[in-house]
Amino acid sequence: MSLKVSDIGEKDLIKLILDNSKYILQDDAAITSISNFNNLISSTDMLIQSKHFPDEMTYFQMGFKSVTVNVSDLAAMGAEPLGFLLSIAIPRNLLVNDFKEIINGVLDACNFYKIPLIGGDTNEANEIIISGTALGVCDNPILMSGFENGDLIAITGDVGVVAEEFKTKKFTENTLKPIARLKEGQYLKEIGASSATDITDGLISELFLLHAQKPDLGLMIYENTLKNKDLCFGEDFELLFTISKEKEDLIKDFIIIGEVNTSKNVEMTLEDGKTITLENKGYNHFKD
Amino acid sequence: MSLKVSDIGEKDLIKLILDNSKYILQDDAAITSISNFNNLISSTDMLIQSKHFPDEMTYFQMGFKSVTVNVSDLAAMGAEPLGFLLSIAIPRNLLVNDFKEIINGVLDACNFYKIPLIGGDTNEANEIIISGTALGVCDNPILMSGFENGDLIAITGDVGVVAEEFKTKKFTENTLKPIARLKEGQYLKEIGASSATDITDGLISELFLLHAQKPDLGLMIYENTLKNKDLCFGEDFELLFTISKEKEDLIKDFIIIGEVNTSKNVEMTLEDGKTITLENKGYNHFKD
Repeated sequence: MSLKVSDIGEKDLIKLILDNSKYILQDDAAITSISNFNNLISSTDMLIQSKHFPDEMTYFQMGFKSVTVNVSDLAAMGAEPLGFLLSIAIPRNLLVNDFKEIINGVLDACNFYKIPLIGGDTNEANEIIISGTALGVCDNPILMSGFENGDLIAITGDVGVVAEEFKTKKFTENTLKPIARLKEGQYLKEIGASSATDITDGLISELFLLHAQKPDLGLMIYENTLKNKDLCFGEDFELLFTISKEKEDLIKDFIIIGEVNTSKNVEMTLEDGKTITLENKGYNHFKD
Repeated sequence: MSLKVSDIGEKDLIKLILDNSKYILQDDAAITSISNFNNLISSTDMLIQSKHFPDEMTYFQMGFKSVTVNVSDLAAMGAEPLGFLLSIAIPRNLLVNDFKEIINGVLDACNFYKIPLIGGDTNEANEIIISGTALGVCDNPILMSGFENGDLIAITGDVGVVAEEFKTKKFTENTLKPIARLKEGQYLKEIGASSATDITDGLISELFLLHAQKPDLGLMIYENTLKNKDLCFGEDFELLFTISKEKEDLIKDFIIIGEVNTSKNVEMTLEDGKTITLENKGYNHFKD
């Protein structure tokens, strides 16, 4: 058999790891009990210059984003930051001042999120590669699997914003210096949201990930709340969450986009009242 | 100013980060208090195919080594493993079976060290890049700074072994599937070693790192215990440690190579009885 990874795509590669590893929780971050009343929350994400950094991005912004992507996973669990580890590889001909700017971006983000940079590693590579690990603590993290029939489905802010910037090639800080929804995630934990995840891989893709945790339920979103938005591109650092209807008053700052039902599908109610079943067309790395 | 990173070398790059980050402990791993009686120990290390994996290394061994390098940092603190995070980037034309072998190597090592794989990330890159994060716990980690005048300096096993294999191009598992000295590190913690560090960057280089923590003391090694060994190449996964002389009986399985004195230098006593001051010639990434 000589299948290449580009023949099967990232999702199947991850499945291949998950099938062999009984300790991995399929959620935004890992949860490890460290006492009777607290859990360590940990997550790692790697950014690679040629894949993740548009040409318009400054070195400072690369550093900042490498912290944001990891803190976003803590946010989706409702965790408090504990520490950040930075593993960075750079080409040998990178200017020292540019390296300093990357580090300044990392440190500025660590300061912004109040997550101390506690360790790291430097290496040489042909392009800039930044792998971060965010560590946090949480007594009662928000799982992806907690949603119940009748819960509201909501997002902490607009989707498709970054997709639009890529389409028009007019980049703002939404794309170049995104901010993780850390405070929002902690608020959602406090008010007892039933599930949460970030939507950096695209709203539709994340709805399917949520749904896979409880396939006997269904997730329905309303077209009129999401009109003309790109729901697949991703890179928006908003949180997708569910919460019981009784708590609707507590989420007035957020956007309700649907509800949990018993359809066993991910579906959309169109403006004309018809309901269609959605297909999972989120971005799949590697796959052609 | 247009200095390149190759003009200044890895040590100065790291210094540049350390000078701006007050939370980084200069040790094998970070220590974060998580309760009155326990600390989280965390460390991250990135391996890059073209830099760290000799052609003779199998995909399985690449995966295994990526766990070993991170667990070695836990070992140097005397920590108990808690969890491992894997961030891996691979080329799109890598065979799925080769990817499986890397993952099998990671999982085999996690099983060997009893450190569960709890999370991770996959990405696309031009070559194989594996960034791991090892998490552990320890009530009373061994610091690099604990050595006192009169302490013995010792290593858990032979140095220069991997250097010799690179010289002769005859590779064994010492190079291809190295083992972290986790049990040894935990033993050293139990018996109260005063300092420890791994010597993967070379014995001499690590002696200078230790010495920098207490420059008013001196570290003296005996030539006759280290004859004809390469003390600079590194890649041996032994631990360098110090311990008070009264505990000499407890380290019979290890090799005593010197003692702490008040010379303020890193020095070597030659076989003829003369003492010379050593220079720090350890490997420095990037630097030409």
